[in-house]
Amino acid sequence: MKLHWSPRSPFVRKVTVTLHETGLIDRVDCVDTHVGMKETNRELMRENPLSKLPTLILDDGNALFDSPVICEYLDTLHDGTKLFPAGGPERFAALRWQALGDGLLDLLVLWRNEAIRPPGTFSPPHLAAFEAKVEATLNRIESETSALAGAPFGIGHIAIGIGGSYLDFRYADRDWRTSRPAFAEWHAGFAARPSVRATEPVAD
Amino acid sequence: MKLHWSPRSPFVRKVTVTLHETGLIDRVDCVDTHVGMKETNRELMRENPLSKLPTLILDDGNALFDSPVICEYLDTLHDGTKLFPAGGPERFAALRWQALGDGLLDLLVLWRNEAIRPPGTFSPPHLAAFEAKVEATLNRIESETSALAGAPFGIGHIAIGIGGSYLDFRYADRDWRTSRPAFAEWHAGFAARPSVRATEPVAD
Repeated sequence: MKLHWSPRSPFVRKVTVTLHETGLIDRVDCVDTHVGMKETNRELMRENPLSKLPTLILDDGNALFDSPVICEYLDTLHDGTKLFPAGGPERFAALRWQALGDGLLDLLVLWRNEAIRPPGTFSPPHLAAFEAKVEATLNRIESETSALAGAPFGIGHIAIGIGGSYLDFRYADRDWRTSRPAFAEWHAGFAARPSVRATEPVAD
Repeated sequence: MKLHWSPRSPFVRKVTVTLHETGLIDRVDCVDTHVGMKETNRELMRENPLSKLPTLILDDGNALFDSPVICEYLDTLHDGTKLFPAGGPERFAALRWQALGDGLLDLLVLWRNEAIRPPGTFSPPHLAAFEAKVEATLNRIESETSALAGAPFGIGHIAIGIGGSYLDFRYADRDWRTSRPAFAEWHAGFAARPSVRATEPVAD
């Protein structure tokens, strides 16, 4: 399989952490691929017209996206402990945590895209709203950390953990930990996993 | 159950079409809820800190989001034909089509948010990139319409169908049909479904 990849995309990192956790990393060739909100990667768009990462090309040539679909597909290819519970309340708790982590990442990416616009063209109300939603989401994660820590490690943990790691990567001057001691402690354990250490982002 | 709802959100419409298709519509109270990219709905954020629609409040008080999670959950509550295939290639075809339709909707929403910025603050490169990705996605849907039409109706059809309907609602002056006759013909059948007719958007 071929993975359209970037060392900075947190959504790609969900996939590469999943590949390490499931022992599948050697079955995928990672292809460095550049995308951006205001750019069109025509080569990638032949396989994924949305021009987004991650995109996984299967051995039969079919392309899978987005990260939840790719991760769930990869989870069918191994016999170890599953990252996606098969059904019941456990499944929807995991999918909801994945949506919470993905939603945090979406906000962080939109916020950063807004902040790097040329002076005079960025929108202060957008920046304020992104920040307020990020803060509220981090507070919510703090209040759910006990439940998260008590559930078997899965796709929800990966998405939320990468949320914290992406804050460290792109917003290193923001202290998200002091007022969220439970999330901070849980995240330290997440960051120590071999799958997470093997997929550290590289600055551009 | 309570659904945070808007008559204009295409992601909410995925949920209401699903509710009609599965016979569950009478089990949900729809609560008109206002959200926007540069706004923070504090009441909604107590249940979904991302401040996004749709958000489904279950009878036990737990909140589910986003639309793929809500739709998959609702699909477990009925005994009719499932909108999410249980597994195998059929499941990943459906999830991929859902991601294609959701990705189209994301682009259309971002494009519109960009276009309605005050003069001098919108970004022509962003607008051009959104348009190019939308066109490429519609072309891809055209090339896959035969496969889509041949698969049992499911969540992928709902997402892609609502993509066409959202174009008609928010981009009524764009002719997306002439160069995509297969998608246009398939969409006419989609638009005639009772679930789709019962969930027509209302202009603001």
